[in-house]
Amino acid sequence: MSGSIPASVYGQRLGAAGDALRDAGAAALLIGVGADLRWLTGYAAMPLERLTMLVLPADGPPTLLVPRLELPASLAAPAIASSVVPVQSWDETEDPIARVVTATGIHATGEGSEILVSDRLWAMFLLSLQEALPRARFGLASRAMRGLRMVKQREEIELLRRAAHAADRTVDAVAGGRLVGRTEADVAREVGTRLVDEGHEHAAFWIVASGRNSASPHHEPTDRVIQAGEPIVLDVGGTIEGYGSDITRTLWVTGSDGSRPPEPEFLQLYATLEAAQASGVESVRPGATCESIDAVCRDPITAAGYGEQFIHRTGHGIGLEGHEDPYLVAGNAEPLAVGHAFSVEPGIYLEGRYGARIEDIVVCGATGPDPLNVASHELRVVTG
Amino acid sequence: MSGSIPASVYGQRLGAAGDALRDAGAAALLIGVGADLRWLTGYAAMPLERLTMLVLPADGPPTLLVPRLELPASLAAPAIASSVVPVQSWDETEDPIARVVTATGIHATGEGSEILVSDRLWAMFLLSLQEALPRARFGLASRAMRGLRMVKQREEIELLRRAAHAADRTVDAVAGGRLVGRTEADVAREVGTRLVDEGHEHAAFWIVASGRNSASPHHEPTDRVIQAGEPIVLDVGGTIEGYGSDITRTLWVTGSDGSRPPEPEFLQLYATLEAAQASGVESVRPGATCESIDAVCRDPITAAGYGEQFIHRTGHGIGLEGHEDPYLVAGNAEPLAVGHAFSVEPGIYLEGRYGARIEDIVVCGATGPDPLNVASHELRVVTG
Repeated sequence: MSGSIPASVYGQRLGAAGDALRDAGAAALLIGVGADLRWLTGYAAMPLERLTMLVLPADGPPTLLVPRLELPASLAAPAIASSVVPVQSWDETEDPIARVVTATGIHATGEGSEILVSDRLWAMFLLSLQEALPRARFGLASRAMRGLRMVKQREEIELLRRAAHAADRTVDAVAGGRLVGRTEADVAREVGTRLVDEGHEHAAFWIVASGRNSASPHHEPTDRVIQAGEPIVLDVGGTIEGYGSDITRTLWVTGSDGSRPPEPEFLQLYATLEAAQASGVESVRPGATCESIDAVCRDPITAAGYGEQFIHRTGHGIGLEGHEDPYLVAGNAEPLAVGHAFSVEPGIYLEGRYGARIEDIVVCGATGPDPLNVASHELRVVTG
Repeated sequence: MSGSIPASVYGQRLGAAGDALRDAGAAALLIGVGADLRWLTGYAAMPLERLTMLVLPADGPPTLLVPRLELPASLAAPAIASSVVPVQSWDETEDPIARVVTATGIHATGEGSEILVSDRLWAMFLLSLQEALPRARFGLASRAMRGLRMVKQREEIELLRRAAHAADRTVDAVAGGRLVGRTEADVAREVGTRLVDEGHEHAAFWIVASGRNSASPHHEPTDRVIQAGEPIVLDVGGTIEGYGSDITRTLWVTGSDGSRPPEPEFLQLYATLEAAQASGVESVRPGATCESIDAVCRDPITAAGYGEQFIHRTGHGIGLEGHEDPYLVAGNAEPLAVGHAFSVEPGIYLEGRYGARIEDIVVCGATGPDPLNVASHELRVVTG
């Protein structure tokens, strides 16, 4: 389990989380399986119906509670292996919720205590915790964690950059091969294989949306056969040590004789999109609000008459989760800060016809944007 | 999105869920992304921070609420495409929780109403629902859904069987190749590729645990190089139309000259395990309790002196979730019924030395077990 994040980092992160918890006035953080757990301990636990939970009381030592058969796997996690967090295991016929309550140090009904649970904790666990501590208030761990996790550390940015470059190479390779006559699903399988071949641990998603399917932003690849004379939106990503890539590029396939070049309206749509996306990226700097980047991308698209066809926000944060804070969306006045990492991905979707999207991952640097993707933004006009 | 489950089935399932909801005395089922949603509508939605929710009131029509950019994908789902469930979309800057509350038909604070939410709904959604309906009681959807989902229909059993056979072929192929000198991670990659090549849509997991790592039931494959003269536990699975396979077989690699045959104690351990697992499978019949199957597997292992080394329950249900009801565990007096599908997978783990496990997926038939896996249970002694 040794990786790019030094084990010493986990002690610092746990200390910072404890500070944030006390600042929030809450009594304990209860972190289930997921990105918060991995960020705090390095433990990439499997999501299981058996409870795994990091208990971090405001005024006591942390405990990681794991099912007995996960004990060997958890012991290999950096913060556990280096004894930053003691681990306890529970047996198959025990009640793990009672063990969690004990580890919080909260007594009786929880009256007067607020407990922050990880945002993606399952209802089956949260309802049991609420039953065990019926007078406690429950809130989301992101209140304490989001400020910490949003600001990526140097090692995290380098993992995001490695993943971004692996995704760049994947898109370039797929765009360079034959496409006409293949199904979306077949191209999606190629994407999955190439994401791993180019250096990801796992392929995470592989949107291949051709022709009119390109007007659906989250299209699932189908058995539709790709034709000459239509666009393809590729939106693909994988992970390296848990950190994600997420790139979108749009192609136009002309056919081998080049007889079906891009339609003039598509070229105009794409030019609008490309300029809007570039403006959004260039506007990234500390202090710029999330909604201002959304507006910088959206305004020229609206001015060109496509405002109603840009049906989603401009971007999402990325790190150990594919979508995380900060979100670049109208109404989010949060200022960007050095180390924030997020997508900038406007799109225009003409229902029943076609669509296009361009997406990069960008880190907010001290003086401006640090775009992690290096693949060309031009419309890829390909013959195959 | 056409598959093996006829679209007409979804209307029946929604009707049965409504009946179960009313039997439970609850006012509404709120089903987020996951297996319940797929079972009820055929919609295999992506888990996203944007809320997707099926709202099924006890005394009103169902509604599927989706984020606007997921609308095209949701419209392809069988129950939506066939108009069994009307779909509504919410825009990027709207509050979807308010829309959910409206769709339930529950007024004001929710006083006197009980609402059942899907077991794996994220805390971020459940806490928002609790805030919007502060006087409602919240319970788990499994109270209404588990009885329905546990009893597999004919089409579901055939999907489980197809997946099981694809997993059988995967294990046979990996066991027939070279192993000594390769890393666990390398063999795991081969498993992932073969699971798909043999017919799964997705590879879901690939435990390759060699030597002393085989004593960790949920070992993550590492860069450890496989040696002659040690066991390998392979526990692998994938999905077909969402239905899972899950098989475990144990090998012993002797080296190419056969000079490192299985140690006598390992052979004895394995013989105990094989007999115990076979007894467990043979005991499956309608009316036998879950805990009785656990005991049938556990008792001979305990009698042989390995009781403390069989550190997990005997099995878990399987269907659209890799682990679901029923669980074969001490304390679960639920009787098996025709159509229940579950693993029977005792294991023995000698910490610091080695371990072994044998796992089949079994369906409870009218007169006895219907084991879905056909791969041999014998210890695979391989030279490579």
